[in-house]
Amino acid sequence: MRATFMYGAGDVRVEQTADAVIRQPTDAVVRIVRSCVCGSDLHPFGSMPAGTDGAAMGHEFIGVVEEIGSAVTNLVRGDFVISPFAYCDNTCDICKDGFQTACVNGGWYGLGDVGGAQAEAVRVPQASGTLVKVPAGVDEALYPSLLALSDVYLTGYHAAFMGKVQPGRTVTVIGDGAVGLSAVLSARQMGAEHIILMGRHTDRTDLGRTFGATHVVAERGEEGVAQVMELTGGQGSHIVLEAVGHLPAYEQAYGIVRAGGVISRVGVPQYEDAPVGFGSLFGKNVTLNGGPAPVRAYIEEVLPDVLEGRIDPGQVFDRTLTLDEVPAAYRAMADRDALKVQLIP
Amino acid sequence: MRATFMYGAGDVRVEQTADAVIRQPTDAVVRIVRSCVCGSDLHPFGSMPAGTDGAAMGHEFIGVVEEIGSAVTNLVRGDFVISPFAYCDNTCDICKDGFQTACVNGGWYGLGDVGGAQAEAVRVPQASGTLVKVPAGVDEALYPSLLALSDVYLTGYHAAFMGKVQPGRTVTVIGDGAVGLSAVLSARQMGAEHIILMGRHTDRTDLGRTFGATHVVAERGEEGVAQVMELTGGQGSHIVLEAVGHLPAYEQAYGIVRAGGVISRVGVPQYEDAPVGFGSLFGKNVTLNGGPAPVRAYIEEVLPDVLEGRIDPGQVFDRTLTLDEVPAAYRAMADRDALKVQLIP
Repeated sequence: MRATFMYGAGDVRVEQTADAVIRQPTDAVVRIVRSCVCGSDLHPFGSMPAGTDGAAMGHEFIGVVEEIGSAVTNLVRGDFVISPFAYCDNTCDICKDGFQTACVNGGWYGLGDVGGAQAEAVRVPQASGTLVKVPAGVDEALYPSLLALSDVYLTGYHAAFMGKVQPGRTVTVIGDGAVGLSAVLSARQMGAEHIILMGRHTDRTDLGRTFGATHVVAERGEEGVAQVMELTGGQGSHIVLEAVGHLPAYEQAYGIVRAGGVISRVGVPQYEDAPVGFGSLFGKNVTLNGGPAPVRAYIEEVLPDVLEGRIDPGQVFDRTLTLDEVPAAYRAMADRDALKVQLIP
Repeated sequence: MRATFMYGAGDVRVEQTADAVIRQPTDAVVRIVRSCVCGSDLHPFGSMPAGTDGAAMGHEFIGVVEEIGSAVTNLVRGDFVISPFAYCDNTCDICKDGFQTACVNGGWYGLGDVGGAQAEAVRVPQASGTLVKVPAGVDEALYPSLLALSDVYLTGYHAAFMGKVQPGRTVTVIGDGAVGLSAVLSARQMGAEHIILMGRHTDRTDLGRTFGATHVVAERGEEGVAQVMELTGGQGSHIVLEAVGHLPAYEQAYGIVRAGGVISRVGVPQYEDAPVGFGSLFGKNVTLNGGPAPVRAYIEEVLPDVLEGRIDPGQVFDRTLTLDEVPAAYRAMADRDALKVQLIP
């Protein structure tokens, strides 16, 4: 089968590789119907040292169950499924707490002997816990929004969930990428009163307004902080959803958060150390949370909103390419020429 | 009147100073009945550069209202009161959110033209919002526990509150100082199932056991982390209450917190930058919160527990000295000879 491997910064290739097969009784093999490129894939695409071992790429997909292991009892061949971007047993104590990305039997696509999803098919470990069935016969027009439940929309949703967005609250979203826009839509769904989107790409912030942003702030750094403080009557934002992952975005976050407020991060931090002392978080009693989104915890709850047309998170996909065009997909996203690219095998 | 001033590390003096007087219509003057030395006072006592301007010291007290400004309507001369360690109007939006230490009209004792409480009397700004009346005729034996509501007990309580301690949870408290022990007692009051106290001073951890600690871990660093991981079946602690404020304690905290858990800090951080990236907080979806305790939010709720004898947080005071003995009080606490010293003017 064909699958995507990255060999270094800017070097992503579609190659022939061994077919995905069942290895454990808890596995399934899923034939990919749609996958996509993630903002987080762009970090190694920008900085990965060149090497001879390719890294298997892709972790977001919808598809059809092709084979199941002997221990998989809740799926049959032919089931149409959504996969969270991390696999999990969905039964351990940590999963029960709603943090499936830290499942004791879980893991990540593309690591170890688990392949990536920018491919024709993929082996899914812990398939019973991981995969969520979608009713048969779904209109193909809904595929982008179903694919968005694999990662991007529910990553924005996780930010809003951890931020405890609720009616009457002011929410500021930092970042107008696909995750940031998904956070805007999630905040609207949770009833936020004011949603300030910090971003400077008008085509993206326009979609942000469609998703529910009430204000757009294009400035960054100190100027951006000053704008948000003015918009919030000098008090700052109850909740800040940080969907970038670079240190300046984090610094912006603690500059605009209200005393007693929450900074919820879903942009994968490209830093380890950052200010957390009296001058940043502590003095204002700010809560910092977020992490890799346990989207498995949210798929079933949000699926009816997609199937019944109440939300259309798939609008973040502004381009569709074939698997063979993966290199062009990465380039388009890295060049900010496309917001998020959907792949058809 | 006499009041305490610090002139540099190790140099604390009781001096004659101008009497506390009403300056604003919202002020009260309170004659101090009991005050004390705070663990946070020991930071400047250890490191303050020598200078000629003394810093007014002390921010925890109970006392009797001696004078009130014209705008103070809910207090009369002779009222016996507890003061939170920060003053506040208790009516602004931030106070209504329960974060009175960030009140828009609030501030700190000992700063600007507001005196300290290691004194015979003190001017209390925003007196109507700040001071909480205690019923007349309280037994003097309860004074230490009432004084503990001014800061130390409710700072531990804030840690537990922000950590969302609840029945069935495992809570680890880092630090066997008076705040750490108060956090143990608070966690027990909130129904924690297991309370692990990390501390190595047996006389203090013994009081910790009296307050509700179910386990004591004397080891620190990697060894301490390993012990807590073993005690929690390898999963870590749902909630970590950090009551020290030094970086190694914070590092210990993210080493032992369970995925999806909370690190709640009330030890004033003696650092600004610290790890918060994938390897520390983000990867495990850990929540970091805490800050200067808005004790004003909790006094009225907890007061009946003290008055009716259900809790005795005043046990953290293991020595009583007079105001004139303040230098000895600081030395005893800095030398860990006393846990917390109560002062009688």
